[in-house]
Amino acid sequence: MAVYTEVSDDDLRAFLAEYDIGEVVSCKGIAEGVENSNYLLQTVRSEDQPPESYILTLYEKRVDPGDLPYFLGLMDHLAESGLSCPTPIHGRDGAALRSVAGRPAAIISFLLGTWPRKVTTHHCAELGAAMAHMHAAGQDFEGNRPNTMGLQSWRDLVAATKDRADEVVPGLSDAIQQELADITSAWPTGLPEGVIHADLFPDNVFFLGERLSGLIDFYFACNDALAYDIAICLNAWCFEADASLNVTKARAMLRGYAGVRGLTRAEYDALPALARGAALRFTLTRLYDLLNHDDAAFVQPKDPRQFLDRLRFHQQVDGPGDYGISFEDVSG
Amino acid sequence: MAVYTEVSDDDLRAFLAEYDIGEVVSCKGIAEGVENSNYLLQTVRSEDQPPESYILTLYEKRVDPGDLPYFLGLMDHLAESGLSCPTPIHGRDGAALRSVAGRPAAIISFLLGTWPRKVTTHHCAELGAAMAHMHAAGQDFEGNRPNTMGLQSWRDLVAATKDRADEVVPGLSDAIQQELADITSAWPTGLPEGVIHADLFPDNVFFLGERLSGLIDFYFACNDALAYDIAICLNAWCFEADASLNVTKARAMLRGYAGVRGLTRAEYDALPALARGAALRFTLTRLYDLLNHDDAAFVQPKDPRQFLDRLRFHQQVDGPGDYGISFEDVSG
Repeated sequence: MAVYTEVSDDDLRAFLAEYDIGEVVSCKGIAEGVENSNYLLQTVRSEDQPPESYILTLYEKRVDPGDLPYFLGLMDHLAESGLSCPTPIHGRDGAALRSVAGRPAAIISFLLGTWPRKVTTHHCAELGAAMAHMHAAGQDFEGNRPNTMGLQSWRDLVAATKDRADEVVPGLSDAIQQELADITSAWPTGLPEGVIHADLFPDNVFFLGERLSGLIDFYFACNDALAYDIAICLNAWCFEADASLNVTKARAMLRGYAGVRGLTRAEYDALPALARGAALRFTLTRLYDLLNHDDAAFVQPKDPRQFLDRLRFHQQVDGPGDYGISFEDVSG
Repeated sequence: MAVYTEVSDDDLRAFLAEYDIGEVVSCKGIAEGVENSNYLLQTVRSEDQPPESYILTLYEKRVDPGDLPYFLGLMDHLAESGLSCPTPIHGRDGAALRSVAGRPAAIISFLLGTWPRKVTTHHCAELGAAMAHMHAAGQDFEGNRPNTMGLQSWRDLVAATKDRADEVVPGLSDAIQQELADITSAWPTGLPEGVIHADLFPDNVFFLGERLSGLIDFYFACNDALAYDIAICLNAWCFEADASLNVTKARAMLRGYAGVRGLTRAEYDALPALARGAALRFTLTRLYDLLNHDDAAFVQPKDPRQFLDRLRFHQQVDGPGDYGISFEDVSG
C-alpha cells in the first residue's frame, strides 16, 4: 500500500518517449505492493483505439538496482517459456530498465486478473501447478541470484530483533533464538535447486474466475532449493485464521505441484524443516518491520504472530505426512 | 493514499451482477484520495473486446451516507449539462448507489487524464474556465446541501485544536482564534450562490496534454457563494512553494473564469475576505488531521503551515487588485 515517488508530467512524458506504446492518458498510483512505487499507466496509440494498460514500477530503496537485470530478465525468460507473468516492455533502444524521477524504473505488461482474498482448495491446486511450471521454466534461465532472505539473513534478523522481540510477544526473543539454532543444525542441503519465486503469497497470484491467470512480483526471486518455494506456499496459502493447517488445501497444492513436477524423496522428507524455515523467515521480517516501522512509509506493518503460530505448528509435526499427503502421491 | 476496505472476490462478483458492464478482469486499489476507498476496476463484456475501466468507490466514515444522493445526482446533472466529469454507472434497477463489504458504494465512469504535478499558468486559465462552466451548469441543479466545511465548522475546528495548536507552530493558537474573530465579522454575505466544488485542488483536475479533460471528486460539493470556490482555487493553484502569490497564475485563473461567467462587483470586492476564509479552512482541517492523526489510516497528514502562510498573505493585501486583475477585467 504505497507510492513513495511521485512522477511529474514532464518526467513521465520524457520517459514514455523512449517507448513505442503511445501517449499517456492516465497514470494512477496503486495502493498494493510494499516495496516499490507502482502506477497503473494507460496509453493510447491513436485516437480511435482504446487505452492499453501497463504497470510503471519505480524501484525503491529496498531493491538492489544490481538485481534488476536478473528480475527483468527472469520475467522475459519465464514468459518466453509459456508461463503467464508480467513482462518488461522494451524501449526503442531495446532496454527494459531505465530511470525516472531519480529511481530505476521499468514499464511492465499488465496482467489481467484479481488475487484471491478468500483462498479455496481449488486456488491451492492451481497455485501448485503454476509454481511447478515456473520451477520447470526456470531450469534453463542463465541468471543467478543468491537468496538474500535465506539462513544468513535470519541470523542477522534475530540479532537485530532479539533485544526488543519480547515487546511484541513475551518470550519471543528466546523462541526465535532457539528456533534459529534448531534450524541451523537441521537445515536440508543438496536438494534440487533452481529459480524460486520466494514470495508467492495470494496477492501475487492472479485468477480470472476459477482459472489462474498468472504470477506477479518477482522481486524476491532467487536461486535456491525448489522445495523451499513449496514450503513458503504451505505457510502462505494453507492455514486458516485460527492457525490450524487446512490439510485439504495443503494436499491440493502439493498434488497440483506434483502433477507437473514430482518431488524427490529428499524434498518430501525435508518439507517440515523447510516449512519451519519459511515460517521463521516471515516471522522475523515482519517482526523487524514492526519494530522499525516508519510512519511516513504509509505501510501498515503485518503481524509477525501469524507466522509464529505457523512456526509452532511445523515444530510439532511428526513428518511430511502431516501435510496430508504420502510420498507416493507426490513423487515423480 | 488510501484503501480502507477490502472487497472479497465473491462480494465483488455479486455487486457487479447488478450492473450491465461485463465481468471483472482486474480490480486494483488506488493510492490517491484520502476520504474513500477507490479501486480501478476493469471489466470485459465479451472476450473479443478490450477491457473497460471504471472507478469503484466505497464511501468511508468521513462521508455522510445521506449526502451521497446529492453527490451522485450532481455528477449526473453536470455531465448532462456538458461538463466533463465522472458519472455514476446506474445498475439494472436504475440505482447508482448500493453497498458492498458493508459500505455504501458506487461505480463511477473512468475519466482519462492526469492531474498536474507542476501547475502552469495555462493550467490555471483552463481551471478558471472549467470552474465557471461548473458553476453555470449547477444553477439548475435541484439538490441542496449546506457547506459543512463553512464558517460554523471553523468555529468547531478552532475549539478542537486551540489547546494543542502551538505544538505545531508556536503562537498558532492565538493566530487562529484572532483570525476566526476577524473573519466572522468581515464574512461577506448576499453573494451569488450555487453549487460549488469546494475542493478543487490540482489533484482533482485532469488534463490530457494541454487540454483540461475534466473535474473529479465532488464529495465536498455544496451550495455556497460561487466566489468562495474561486477563493479556494486562488489558494490551491496560484501560490509558489515560497508562499508568494504568482500574480500571473491568479490573473490567468480569474480571466479564464470571467470569460465564462463575469463576477459581480460584490464578488470581486469580497475576494480577499473569501481567500482568507479559504486559507483558514485548510489550515484548520490540516491542523486537526495532524493533531488527530491515526497511523492505521495510511494517510500522511498534510502540513497546515502551507495554508497558514497563504492566510498571512491574504491578511495583508490592500484589495482584490493585489490578485493581479481589475474589476473591469473580470466583470460580466
